[in-house]
Amino acid sequence: MEKQALNNENAYIAAADIGGTSIKLGLFSREHRLIASWEIPTDPAENGSNILPDTADSLLRHAAGVPIAGLGMGVPGAVDRQNTVRNCTNIGWDTTNLENAVRALLPDIPVLAFGNDASVAALGELCFGAGRNYDSAYFITLGTGVGGGYASGGRVISGANGAAGEIGHILINPGESTACMCGRCGCLEQYASANGIVRLAHNLLRIKGCRPVEDDCPGDVHIERLFDIDIPDDESRLEHAEGFNSKDIFKLADSGDRLAGLTVELFGRCLGLAMSSISCSVDPEVYIIGGGMSKAGKTLVNAVKRGYLSYAYPPSRDTEILISGLGNQAGIYGCAAMADRLMSCK
Amino acid sequence: MEKQALNNENAYIAAADIGGTSIKLGLFSREHRLIASWEIPTDPAENGSNILPDTADSLLRHAAGVPIAGLGMGVPGAVDRQNTVRNCTNIGWDTTNLENAVRALLPDIPVLAFGNDASVAALGELCFGAGRNYDSAYFITLGTGVGGGYASGGRVISGANGAAGEIGHILINPGESTACMCGRCGCLEQYASANGIVRLAHNLLRIKGCRPVEDDCPGDVHIERLFDIDIPDDESRLEHAEGFNSKDIFKLADSGDRLAGLTVELFGRCLGLAMSSISCSVDPEVYIIGGGMSKAGKTLVNAVKRGYLSYAYPPSRDTEILISGLGNQAGIYGCAAMADRLMSCK
Repeated sequence: MEKQALNNENAYIAAADIGGTSIKLGLFSREHRLIASWEIPTDPAENGSNILPDTADSLLRHAAGVPIAGLGMGVPGAVDRQNTVRNCTNIGWDTTNLENAVRALLPDIPVLAFGNDASVAALGELCFGAGRNYDSAYFITLGTGVGGGYASGGRVISGANGAAGEIGHILINPGESTACMCGRCGCLEQYASANGIVRLAHNLLRIKGCRPVEDDCPGDVHIERLFDIDIPDDESRLEHAEGFNSKDIFKLADSGDRLAGLTVELFGRCLGLAMSSISCSVDPEVYIIGGGMSKAGKTLVNAVKRGYLSYAYPPSRDTEILISGLGNQAGIYGCAAMADRLMSCK
Repeated sequence: MEKQALNNENAYIAAADIGGTSIKLGLFSREHRLIASWEIPTDPAENGSNILPDTADSLLRHAAGVPIAGLGMGVPGAVDRQNTVRNCTNIGWDTTNLENAVRALLPDIPVLAFGNDASVAALGELCFGAGRNYDSAYFITLGTGVGGGYASGGRVISGANGAAGEIGHILINPGESTACMCGRCGCLEQYASANGIVRLAHNLLRIKGCRPVEDDCPGDVHIERLFDIDIPDDESRLEHAEGFNSKDIFKLADSGDRLAGLTVELFGRCLGLAMSSISCSVDPEVYIIGGGMSKAGKTLVNAVKRGYLSYAYPPSRDTEILISGLGNQAGIYGCAAMADRLMSCK
């Protein structure tokens, strides 16, 4: 059965991109054409123990008897070379050997490939999306957190501890007094995630004197330790907002609100500073920005470009910065590419 | 002739590691055994136009009629995929296509491979030196400047602009007011090179009030913008030294001089901070430290380890930090590995 599926040109390549709220699934032809894509909810019950069985059931049902030659799976944690995943806390998993677990559920699929979700998305963008004309791409995902992945020469570089691409934890402000989720102070994620940019705005409001002192809570950040900040003196709509999110900030910046504009500018400088370090480390051909925040489009990309240019080492100043071409399907495309690569080695 | 050399098991693999003061040369057996190694001076006359002819002559003379199946060459600049080198300013070269230039001088060598000197040294250490038991290594060279190179899966990652490994230009102190050679302010090289650590010591002496105000010259750096610094109040021998270099600082630190010890500590924190960014970018299995300063041995490595641990993202805290195993022969070993890799593709 195994060999049969692998050599069957009509067999599918399956893809499963497991996230905290949903599992994105796909079936691809052997020529990487997306045949079907769908989502199922991620079941958080019983420490996420239904997630892999649900995924397996759903794939088999959609494949409807057509053999699957290979499956690529992305998971929100660090995957080592033995396909063991660690730190998958947001779906409740303890340390798990994915290969053994999936092999038990899907014994007829000859090739199984696993990777970190952001790294897999980077591979998807590199092979089929905004990076398809480049040899190496650094993918940056901006959402609840800041993640990333590096793909070069058609393969994902996941690193010795699966921590390659964990750019949300590049320290850009070691003088910060507020701790990041990781326990250290001054990580990029504290300023450049969806929460981070809201904190930046609160930071500016505090400097302007618009928020009471008790608002200097543990959630606040101190970006003024990194940059000289010149607060615009005209009134901002953020001063009177009861609450606001990252979308509101980008929208207000677009409408000409100068404090919101400065917030976006500082967000761009924080990300640009971290990207200048990445360029000195590995010098990717292109940066591709995805994740929920990337929907802010040009306003966001232009701020990041200005931020990067403020700090980039001259030889890598011209590195391109693009918006994701595959959106939230980057993951399943990357899963297919990962499975395909492994299949061609068999 | 070409095919003959490539298939001749008795042919040599030649290596040339071109530096600012000397050219290190080597002949290896096809099994990577070093047969002979020697050095010739780098001739800076006429914009370095004698360097490649001198190298070719010397190799042919030492090979004494034995065919050379492949030559690997490391140069102090960024080499692109077309084997064109840029920014080779310290040996006087303009933009040069190395393959054409060397092919004209050594038409009988079938395979020519080129790379940046630090990247090639990284490959040497990864394949034959301190990194030989690892899959990926980030090599850091500490000398007049701070350079580096990243090798993974037996190949050098040189980056889109040949700038991978240019870690001396990771910005660790964007608040710095003194400019680096590259024109930006706050690069790692300003604090962690042989000159950089001397500047750090001057910085501390200035804070202590031991140097006249006019000593706050453009060469001074302002590390106090990055770290809270608590200057030891006992007397340091650095206060009375007419001049001192990086070796003196490490020696004094070893002898218990507390200001010299603090200088070494801050050097380690600067390098450790940059390394924490590299780990979040690509997460190498091991860091290998070479270059002239690495002769300071344990005192240096231990300061770097403490510095790295102060900043490392938890999953990559345990990344090993080793001293170069091949010393100044890392380059020629890497040249041989690079040529060998290309030969096996032919």
